[in-house]
Amino acid sequence: MRMSSRGQVDPFIVMDVMEAARRAEAAGQRIIHMEVGQPGTPAPALARTALARAMERDSLGYTVALGLPELRAGIAGLCRRWYGVDIDPARVIVTAGSSGAFLLAFSALFDAGDRVGVTEPGYPSYRQILRAMSLQPVGIPTHAADRHQPRPEAIAAAHPLAGLILASPGNPTGTMLPRETLADHAAAAQAAGTALISDEIYHGLHYDAPAVSALEVTDEVVVINSFSKYFSMTGWRIGWMVVPEAMVRTVERLAQNLFICPPHASQVAALAALDATEELEANRAVYARNRALLLDGLPKAGFDRIAPPDGAFYIYADVSHLTPNSRAFAAEMLEGCGVAATPGLDFDPLRGHGTLRFSYARATADIEEGLDRLTRWMGRR
Amino acid sequence: MRMSSRGQVDPFIVMDVMEAARRAEAAGQRIIHMEVGQPGTPAPALARTALARAMERDSLGYTVALGLPELRAGIAGLCRRWYGVDIDPARVIVTAGSSGAFLLAFSALFDAGDRVGVTEPGYPSYRQILRAMSLQPVGIPTHAADRHQPRPEAIAAAHPLAGLILASPGNPTGTMLPRETLADHAAAAQAAGTALISDEIYHGLHYDAPAVSALEVTDEVVVINSFSKYFSMTGWRIGWMVVPEAMVRTVERLAQNLFICPPHASQVAALAALDATEELEANRAVYARNRALLLDGLPKAGFDRIAPPDGAFYIYADVSHLTPNSRAFAAEMLEGCGVAATPGLDFDPLRGHGTLRFSYARATADIEEGLDRLTRWMGRR
Repeated sequence: MRMSSRGQVDPFIVMDVMEAARRAEAAGQRIIHMEVGQPGTPAPALARTALARAMERDSLGYTVALGLPELRAGIAGLCRRWYGVDIDPARVIVTAGSSGAFLLAFSALFDAGDRVGVTEPGYPSYRQILRAMSLQPVGIPTHAADRHQPRPEAIAAAHPLAGLILASPGNPTGTMLPRETLADHAAAAQAAGTALISDEIYHGLHYDAPAVSALEVTDEVVVINSFSKYFSMTGWRIGWMVVPEAMVRTVERLAQNLFICPPHASQVAALAALDATEELEANRAVYARNRALLLDGLPKAGFDRIAPPDGAFYIYADVSHLTPNSRAFAAEMLEGCGVAATPGLDFDPLRGHGTLRFSYARATADIEEGLDRLTRWMGRR
Repeated sequence: MRMSSRGQVDPFIVMDVMEAARRAEAAGQRIIHMEVGQPGTPAPALARTALARAMERDSLGYTVALGLPELRAGIAGLCRRWYGVDIDPARVIVTAGSSGAFLLAFSALFDAGDRVGVTEPGYPSYRQILRAMSLQPVGIPTHAADRHQPRPEAIAAAHPLAGLILASPGNPTGTMLPRETLADHAAAAQAAGTALISDEIYHGLHYDAPAVSALEVTDEVVVINSFSKYFSMTGWRIGWMVVPEAMVRTVERLAQNLFICPPHASQVAALAALDATEELEANRAVYARNRALLLDGLPKAGFDRIAPPDGAFYIYADVSHLTPNSRAFAAEMLEGCGVAATPGLDFDPLRGHGTLRFSYARATADIEEGLDRLTRWMGRR
C-alpha cells in the first residue's frame, strides 16, 4: 500500500534503550529506570474511588466534545488557585492528553506548510506531530548558559513563524522562564502575528518558586496542560487547553470530529484528582528528595555539567566531555550498570549527541540505587 | 489570534436538535432520543469489574503505543471468531477510538492535497477530519435503489483517488456490502493504487447474516473498528485498526508521537469486554426488537420510504415527500412530539435536505413511546 511522506516521522532514540532494558529484565536483571518520563505512582486514590463509584451508576457514554462542564469549571478553579487568574470555564477545553491538545491546536491554528518554532532541546513529539500534519518545525537553538530557554534574538532569527511553542518548565531540562521573559516573548509573538503555544504540562512540579503561566501575562495564547505529570495520570490520557475566547468554537468543531470527546472515565477520575492535594504534594516531596540526591550525587559520579532544574522531574546533563555519542554511551551505561537514561538526540537532533536526560520520577530507593551504580560504573570506566 | 483555514470545519447540524432537546428537558419535558448514535447501556459488567480490580493493583501508566499485547492478541482472536481469518496480532493496533484510528490512517497514507473518496450519505466526520488534515474529501453519490452503497462506476468517476473509505454496515443507512462487491471494490482500489479503508465499526450488530470484513477478501486494506458500538463502550474511546504488515512500523511511530498510547484503563476494560458475549448478545436482541418495531411502525406513521437496515442501529428515511427541509422538519418534530432525530444534511451535504436518521440504540420502551408519538404527530400534521 502506498504510504505518505508526512507519515515518515523519526523513531524515538530512547526506544533502543527501552528494548534493551526489557531484554535485560526478561533475563532476570534489575534495571533502574531513569529514562521514563512518568511517575511510578498511580492516579490519586480519590480519582480511582470516584471512577469506581461512577462505573456503578453511570453508563459513561460520550460527553460533550469540550468535556464535562464540572471538570472545565474545576480546571478554571485550578488556574485561580495556582496562578491567581480568573479564566472563564468556557475557554477551558478538556482533551485526550496534551497529545490531543496539540493536535487540536495545530489544526485550529496552522495550514499545511506553515512554519512553527520549537526550541532545541525540546519535547521530541512537537516536531513529529507538526510533520505528520504537513507543518514545518523550525528549530530554535538554546544554550546551557541560558539554561536552555530561548533568547529573543534566536526566536526573531527563526521568523517568519506562524506559531511558536514554549515550555516552562522545559523537557528535558526542567528549567523555567521568568515572568518578564515570558511576557516579552508573548508580546513579541503577538506583534509578529505568531500564535503562541505555552506547554505547561509540568506545572505543579516545582522545587522553589512555582512556574509562571502564560495566562498570567496574556490572553492571546494557547496554554496546554495535562493530568499526566503532577496529577500522576499518564495512562489516562487526559489533559486540557485554555484558548482565547474567539478560538473556542473552532476548537469545539474540530474536537467533535477528531475526537468526539475525551475519555469519559478519565474525566471523572481527573475531576476528583483536582482535590487530591495531600497525596499529590506527597508525590512532589518524593521528587524533591530525588532531585536533591541527584544534584548532589551526579556531579560526584562524574556528571558535573548539569543545570539545576526548577521543575518537572528531569536533569539534562552535558556528557560531551565523556562521549562523542550519547546513544552509544546510554547503551554502555545500561549494559555496564543497569541504569537506563534517555540520549539527548531525542530532544535535540543537532547537539543531543553530547547530552543525556535523567528522570527522577520513581521511588527514592531507585534513585539511591541508581546513583550508587552510576558512581561505581563511572569509577571503573 | 490568526486561525487556519483547515480548522474551519462544518458544524454538526444535529447539534441544533440536541441543544433544543436539552432546553426542552431542562423545562421538564420528556424527550425520546432517536438522534444519538450510541447505546444506552454501559460497558459490559465484566469490563467494569476488570477495571475496578486493575485500579487496585496496577498504576495504569503509559502502555506501549500499539496497545497491550494481550488486547492485540484478543482482537486477533475476535477476527478469527467473527470472520474465520487468521490475523497476526502484530497487524492489530489499538487506538483511541475509531477517531484515533482515522487520524493515524490518514497521516500514514495521505499527503496534503490528496483526494480521498467518501460515500454520500456517510459518517460526517470523515470529511471534517480529512479537511482538518489538509486532505480533499471527494463525495461519491449513492442511491436508495442500491441501498446507499456505491456503484463501481461512481467510484471510478471520482478518480484519481489516493484513498477510498467504505463502510459496511454504513452509517446512516445500516446497509451492508455483499462479499463479492466488497472484493470487487478492493481489487479495483488496489489496481488503481488507491488505499482502501474499511470502516467496520458496526460489526457485531447484524439482524440476519453478519457483515463481511474486508479482511476476508484482502490483506491490502486498513480496517477500522471500535469497542464503541457492539461492545457498548462509546465514552471509553477505545478502538483498533488492522493494517498491512508493511504499514505497522509507520503507524507505530505516528502513534508514539500523536497519542503516546490509547487510554490504559479503557484497554483493560476492552480486553474483558471481548468475553462479555452473553451481555452483548442481550443488547443486540434489544436492538433487533427495536428494529422490528420501527420497520413495522414507521411506515404506518407515514415514514414509508425506508430500506431495511442489515446492521448497526439506524434507519435512514427518505422524507422528501414530507418536507423540502429536513432540518426544519426535525425541529418541528421535536417541538411537536418530543422525538429527536438527525437531519440527513449531516450525512449528505447535497441531498440530505430530504432525509432523516432514526437511531434505535436505546431501550425498547423508548422506541415504543417514540413510535406512538410520531404516529399521533404525523396524523395531525
